[in-house]
Formats: sequence, C-alpha cells, structure tokens
Amino acid sequence: MTRERLSLFDTTLRDGQQTHGVQFSHHDKLRIAETLDALGVDYIEGGWPGANPTDSAFFDERPETRATFTAFGMTKRAGRSAENDDVLAGVVNADTPAVCLVGKTHDFHVETALGIALDENVENISASLRHLVKIGREALFDAEHFFDGYKANPAYALDCLIAARDAGARWIVLCDTNGGTLPTEIHRIVGEVIAAGIPGDRLGIHTHNDTGNAVAGTLAALDAGARQIQGTLNGLGERCGNANLITLIPTLLLKEPYASRYETGVTKAHLKELTRASRMLDEILNRVPFRNAPYVGASAFAHKAGLHASAIVKNPSTYEHIDPALVGNARIVPMSNQAGQSNLRARLLDMGLEVEKGDPALGRILEAVKQKETEGYEYDSAQASFELLARGELGLMADFFDVERYRVISERRRNAKGQTVVESEAVVTISTREGTRTSYYKNDHAQDMSDDGPVNALWQALKSDLGPHQEKIDDMRLSDFQVRITNGGTEAVTRVIIDFQDDAGRDWSTVGVSANIVDASFQALLDAINWKLIRDGAQPV
Amino acid sequence: MTRERLSLFDTTLRDGQQTHGVQFSHHDKLRIAETLDALGVDYIEGGWPGANPTDSAFFDERPETRATFTAFGMTKRAGRSAENDDVLAGVVNADTPAVCLVGKTHDFHVETALGIALDENVENISASLRHLVKIGREALFDAEHFFDGYKANPAYALDCLIAARDAGARWIVLCDTNGGTLPTEIHRIVGEVIAAGIPGDRLGIHTHNDTGNAVAGTLAALDAGARQIQGTLNGLGERCGNANLITLIPTLLLKEPYASRYETGVTKAHLKELTRASRMLDEILNRVPFRNAPYVGASAFAHKAGLHASAIVKNPSTYEHIDPALVGNARIVPMSNQAGQSNLRARLLDMGLEVEKGDPALGRILEAVKQKETEGYEYDSAQASFELLARGELGLMADFFDVERYRVISERRRNAKGQTVVESEAVVTISTREGTRTSYYKNDHAQDMSDDGPVNALWQALKSDLGPHQEKIDDMRLSDFQVRITNGGTEAVTRVIIDFQDDAGRDWSTVGVSANIVDASFQALLDAINWKLIRDGAQPV
Repeated sequence: MTRERLSLFDTTLRDGQQTHGVQFSHHDKLRIAETLDALGVDYIEGGWPGANPTDSAFFDERPETRATFTAFGMTKRAGRSAENDDVLAGVVNADTPAVCLVGKTHDFHVETALGIALDENVENISASLRHLVKIGREALFDAEHFFDGYKANPAYALDCLIAARDAGARWIVLCDTNGGTLPTEIHRIVGEVIAAGIPGDRLGIHTHNDTGNAVAGTLAALDAGARQIQGTLNGLGERCGNANLITLIPTLLLKEPYASRYETGVTKAHLKELTRASRMLDEILNRVPFRNAPYVGASAFAHKAGLHASAIVKNPSTYEHIDPALVGNARIVPMSNQAGQSNLRARLLDMGLEVEKGDPALGRILEAVKQKETEGYEYDSAQASFELLARGELGLMADFFDVERYRVISERRRNAKGQTVVESEAVVTISTREGTRTSYYKNDHAQDMSDDGPVNALWQALKSDLGPHQEKIDDMRLSDFQVRITNGGTEAVTRVIIDFQDDAGRDWSTVGVSANIVDASFQALLDAINWKLIRDGAQPV
Repeated sequence: MTRERLSLFDTTLRDGQQTHGVQFSHHDKLRIAETLDALGVDYIEGGWPGANPTDSAFFDERPETRATFTAFGMTKRAGRSAENDDVLAGVVNADTPAVCLVGKTHDFHVETALGIALDENVENISASLRHLVKIGREALFDAEHFFDGYKANPAYALDCLIAARDAGARWIVLCDTNGGTLPTEIHRIVGEVIAAGIPGDRLGIHTHNDTGNAVAGTLAALDAGARQIQGTLNGLGERCGNANLITLIPTLLLKEPYASRYETGVTKAHLKELTRASRMLDEILNRVPFRNAPYVGASAFAHKAGLHASAIVKNPSTYEHIDPALVGNARIVPMSNQAGQSNLRARLLDMGLEVEKGDPALGRILEAVKQKETEGYEYDSAQASFELLARGELGLMADFFDVERYRVISERRRNAKGQTVVESEAVVTISTREGTRTSYYKNDHAQDMSDDGPVNALWQALKSDLGPHQEKIDDMRLSDFQVRITNGGTEAVTRVIIDFQDDAGRDWSTVGVSANIVDASFQALLDAINWKLIRDGAQPV
C-alpha cells in the first residue's frame, strides 16, 4: 500500500518564540534550525522579518536548510496594494522560498480589531496571496481564529479560505488561535471545510494546548482530512504552548492507523534522535527537561510500581506501549541489569579503561552513578567527572593534592568616594606530600556590576599555585559555565557544569552539586584539575 | 434541562504516588486529601492498605472526608476463597466505604503474568467483587490493560467486565494501563462495551499520558457514554502521568457540550480554587509549578505577541478562550521588546498605575527596559522588578531603606574532628531614617553538601531585621530560584530570577543581573522586599 505523504511544519522559531520567558538569541535560532533540519521536518518558519531586530538579523544570515525556509508575516493592510505595503515588503524581501501570511477569518476580529469591512478583508487575503504567487513564492495562508470564526459565521470564515485557495495558496492553515476548541469540534469543522471545497491536501492544522488537547486536536484534523501539521519542539509557544511535534511525530510513525497510512520527512532512523533533539532544545533554553514528557521524558519509561517492574523484566511489552529505543529513550527499572553493564564497559574503554566482563566494580560504578543522580548530578554532559568516579571504584584514582580549606568572600560597600563597590576574594590552602601552600586572589573594581564573583575568585586562587603540579595546569582555560537549579533528593540543589580547554586541544567538562553554588563550583573545578593531571601523566608527589 | 451527574474519582494518592521521584509522607497524604475534598471530587483513593507501611499507616489514621474514601487492592488470587486471601483481607480491613480492586482482562497477562487459566481469572474477579458487595462495601473493578486486552481478545475482555457487572460492581473502570491507546480507539471501544451490555452509568475511564492524549482519551470515553472519570491532580502518575483532573475539570464545567449536559461535585465556586489547589500540590511536593499548564499555569494567560497584547487590552476575549478568573488564575501582559506603549499602559494599569496616553514617561520606561535587556535583564518572568523600574521612571518609587553594605563568606575547611565542613555566613547593614542596623546570619553544618550557600545566607540576614518594616516582610517566602548564564553586552553575566509568596496569597518574581551571582541575587532580593513593602502600604520612615 502506498502511504500518503504528510507535511510537517515547524514554528518553534516563530510561535515558539512567543513562549513566556523565552528569548532566543541569534545563535540559539541557528542551533534550533540545525536541530530541526536534522530531524527531517518539511518547513522551518524562521520568524517575522521586519518585526524586530532579532528576527530581521536571523533572516539576513539565515542557515542553509534542506527544509523549506519560511518567513511569517501578515496579509496586506487595507487602503494600499500588496506591492506597496511596507510590512509585507519587509517579509517578502527576506527572500525565502515560502511565505506564510496570517489573516483574519473571524468576522468579529475583522470588525473590531482591524476595523474594516468584511469584504475588504477578503480582498486583502486574496491580493496578498496572489502577490506571493506572482513573484514565485510558495504561499501559505494562516487562517487566524478560524475555528472560533467558523462557529460564529461559517459562511464568512469559508469565504476567507476560498479567497486564499483561489489566489493559489499551497497550504491553508486552520488555526485554533485561542486554543479553546475541543478535538471533536475540530474534526467536525475540518470535515465541513473539505466538503465546502477546500481540498484536504491543501489544509493544515495549527492548535494550541489551552485545554490540554493540542496533540489530540491535531490528530482529529488529520483524521478528518488535513495534511499539514504545524507545531513546535517540546510544545513551546504562547500561553500553554503549541501542538508538540516531539509528541506527534512518534505517534504518526509508530501508531495505527497513522503508521500504515502516512509517511513523513522524519524517518524511523531520524526518530532515534528524537530524545536528543528534545533535550538539545532544553539545553539551548537552559530549561530543565520535563521528566514526564510523552516518549522523550526521562521518566517516560520508568517503572516504579513493584508489580510493573517485575513484569517488565520478563517482557517489556507488558507495561510499555512502545520500545523506548525507537525514540532514542531508555527504560528505567529500579535495579541494575546486564544491558547497563555492557554499555558501561564500552564507555570505559573509550576512556582507556579496560574492564573484564563480570568485574564487580561495574556494578559498584552503576550503583554510584545512580546514587549521584538522585543527588542531582548529571554525567551525560560531564564525562570527565564520570571518568573520575569510575576510576575511584576501580582503584585507579591517584591522590595528587588535597584542598585543606578555601574561603570566599563577596562584599558590596561604599568606598571613600561614596561609590558602590562590589569585591570578591578567595583564599585556598592545598597540601601535597611536599607540604601546604596558600594562595590568595582579590578582584576589586570601583564600579557596580564589574566584579566577576566568588566562583571566579575561587578558580583564580586555586589555579595560581598547585606546587609541583603547577606547570601541568598552566594551560587550563575555563570555556563555559552552566548553572541549573535542580532536585537533589527532596531538596533544591545547584548543579554546576564547567567546560575546560587546554593548549593540547582537549575539551573536557565536569559537574558539581550542592545547595551552595560556590561549593558545587569547587567540586567541578577540582575534578577538572584532577582529570587534567591524569591526562598529562602527573605523579602523586 | 436536567444535567446528568458525572462521577470524579481521584487517584493522586495511589496512582499518583507511582510518579518517578515522588514519595509522599503521611503528612503529605493528609494535606492532599484535604485539598481534594475541598475541591469537590466524589472519590478519594487513598492507596493500597497492606502494600507498604506508608499506605497502611495512612488508612489507620485516615482523614474524615465528604468524598467517598476508597481503598485499592487486587482481586483474590487463585486457589483460595475471597474470604481467605490475606492480601484482599488487608484491603478490606481498612474498613473504607468503597474498595477498588484491580484485575486482569488481557488474556496475555492472565496467562503470562498470573500463569492461570482464563476462566479461573474470571472467577477470581467475580468472587472478589461478590465478597465486597456481601460485606456491604461499594465495589469498583479496575480493568487493567482493558483496551489492549479488548483489541487482542474482545470476547474474553468483555467476559471479565460482565463478571464484574454481575457480581454487583458499582463501577467498572476501563484502564489504558500502558497509555498507548488513542482517543478515537477509546471512543470506539467504549461504545462497543456499552453495546455489549455494560451500562455507561456504571463505566469509568482511566487513561495515561504516554502519547500526550490522556485528557482527550478521557473526553472520548465520556462522549461514548462512560460516566466516571479517573485522574490525578496535576497529572501525577507513573511514566508520563495520569489524566490531569486539573485540566479536565474546567473543560467539563466551562466547555460545550459538557457544561450544558453534565454536572459534577465540583461547582463553579470550587473552580475558582483550582489554581490554588494545583499550586498547593506542587508546594507539597516541592516542585516548581509548570508554567504552561492548561488553565492554571502562570503563563496560561500570558500574552507576549505584540498584536495579541494590544488586542487583549481592547477586549480580552480576542485572545483568551476563557476568563482566567473562572479558574482562579490571572492574565499577564508581559513586557518585552515586542511590546508597545498600549501593552505598557495596560500592564501598568494592572499594577494600579494609571498613566495617560502619550505621557513621556511611557517612552522612558520602554527605553529603560530595552537598555536593561541588553545588559541581560529579562522582565517577562519578573513582573515585580518591572513594576519597580516603571515606578522609578514615574517618580513613584518610595525609598524605604538603603543597604549600606553586605558581606558574604563561604568556607570549606576541616573541623576539629577532621570532618569537612562547609559554612556560609552573611552580614548586612541597612539604614532607614531611624538609623542603621546590622544583621548577621551563619549557617554551619558538620557535613558536606548541607550548607545552603551564600545567597541563602544573604537572604536570611537581609530579612531578619528591617527595622520599622520588619512586620511587613515576615510572611515573605522564597519559592523558586533560577539562574542562567547569559550575555550582558559583551560579557557573560549571571541572571537570577527569584519567585516569592506571602500569606496573602501573592506570588511575585524579581530579576537581578551581574557577573557576580551573589550580587545578582542581592538585586533580586532587594526588589522583592521593595515590591512587598509597596503592596503592603509601607511608608518611608
């Protein structure tokens, strides 16, 4: 049976940018576009060129993508031609292969928000889309408030769609802008729209999650005949978010009746990258990944109930709706197992640590990692700290130096001239077999905001005199510093991940966790130095 | 028209307890039961008496509730009578008015997990429920894996339900245990079950969110005729969670066709407590509330897009599917570089600051926000800091107190017993017109990892003696703390956002930015205190 091709349209960079508390930088946008393109979506909507400096800059230097890069804008305003509307010109001038224009289809909004006659709005839709087609762009019409509009005045809402269809819009996207339409209503209305002469293979669906039904509403529209699905990574978006493509994609690829009926640009091979793509977005946004997210959450295949966990060991299908590996996720069963150990051996080998199958240290390492993870540690991004932990359990950890004590002070005060001064200082005492050494660092500035803080002071003091090892750490550079508040057991703790580089071209990352951010940073700094000393062949002295 | 009564069954204390990372204490369970009872659900499932010490203790001292208190257990095992099954006896002995017993309905599970004959399982269901009815309990049958079982062997799955019906079960609950069944399938199968002779008014639905469709699946079962809805507060539950009652309840009460057709024990008056109930659960669990949660999330009615925000000012129904006040939530029109002067005036009005159209202060405020944003500040999530900034530009900022100086120390050392100790301390000097005051706080612990760090020490010192204002800040609580490394101009800076609450039920958030995390936190703490003093009508003294 030939499967019908569905179109996947991502609007993370446009509608997702409306998420409360989210502000993408240019660099963020580039990384997200790259992630989307690797995943295999058909369209990447990049933003609204001309609406704000960030969006404009992004279109000026937009990435090369396999997906159709799309600019968003609005239909021309009344009283001028499409050619002479400067806002529309700003969108068109971004020179993207596709352009998606939002227009009103709800009579109430036309009359109150735009304040123009109903037929004038229809003419604006028609003229704007004809203009796009004429200059050779793929045209999409984003029918704002369509479902509310259709319920209030079906004839008018349909007239707007027909105008877009006749103007040559490739896709007419039915938007549930306010997110209040339930899936059964979406199903009925999409069916009526198709019956009224808008072909399903030119219809898109764009839902929001205000009733917790964005995914179901999208599937309902697909069931009724719509063939383009719009959404965002991790369901980002205004208010409660948009339809979550990370949830929809595996449902389309793995669940019936969809898996047999349709195909998408996202293949089953891409699907294995889904969990990674979801986590990547959270990392870019510095958000804690949602543990209970369908398919990709860290807990999505965690089996806590005793009866479930014991059945899972016999046969995973007893309590799992899909194999987690299909979406790049992993099962969590509250006990360590064979699969865990063979993964671990491979990972240790990568670090040059060869461990025999069945070595009891393997179980101890898994146990220690599990314990540390419940305290808030995270080793995926901190391989160097993981290596030190493993070396500890294997009895391969050298004792290069001890930190006897550190003391860090941050102070805000007025100086003699009455200026506010913020100062940080640190003192560190280390011991080696050669004796103890104390280092001191002070950072003071006569202006507010220019002090680099207690963690920097601690790092400067720590790395300034390591006695016999000093030469080996001189080329260490701190290249990035990430802080996240997370849960460690029942308490909120601070997790610090620090990236380092050296002149040999090595990059390594370490982790520290504590309720005290200074001490969390201290642990990560210490791990980083120890890892570097091992790599450079230092000997305990 | 008479509305039909739906039954709402909460399983937060039983299935919700299976959430990865959640462990309820006895006290937690009492508070959750109280919250549920105040909300107006019909059944509160308290756990499985006899399964573990916490559950047993909870039933021993269970709260008085208006809702029907329900014990969970499993159908009797093969080879003994219901009267002689000690596990079942443990459940029955909890002496609750209602008992819900889980039993298998999927032939595969009967044969592989239980390892008994199919008809033996049917007999176990029948005998167990007859036993409950005989001793005068309301009996519920929890049909585990029903949808998967029905798809594999419909005749057998139905036989199990018929046995429960004929044994006198008040409710037969269809469970999508693995969470993989889509809403359209649930709708079809519930319809077929009713057609096969199980009355809809004895059918319940219990879904999980593994495909992001738990809410939609529940509504689909209701549409098909089921009349009991099972779920949890905030969608707690194993893996991706259960159907979220906090989302379902407002949909049932406010959305058609449900609002006209049905009534529930939760009234529209209770509905106004919904946001509070949701936040209460998060507080009990020490979880950060999910900002984008439907209906109750802090961002559920946040309007960021410039066009939306200006329309909202004219008429909230333009971009809101319900009035947020109906569920005890509130609208947010955030400040950001996408917002214009009309947003700004509306936002200020919400804060009780009426500013004339065209007032030059509006331009100054927008300019100041833009400048702060380039330094790394972010006001979407820090409305209180935004208000203080606006008040400053409007000349409405009172000078309650000054911080002359603070000094924060974090130290790691060995104590006399050789233990590693991490300690933080802070000293703060403030001045008011009444003079200066110095406060000191020290946090020391004899164990690694248990110090709360320099920011906590600073907060404890700062809030311990504010002289004439102390009484007004006594009920301030720090509820969340977020840190992000971001760009401020050309430098990497730390942005801290802190959330606060007080006994009047206020929530507010502030922001601070500096390369020094302690000083960034200090700015946010200071803003939070100033905002609280303004709200509580403090006078400069």
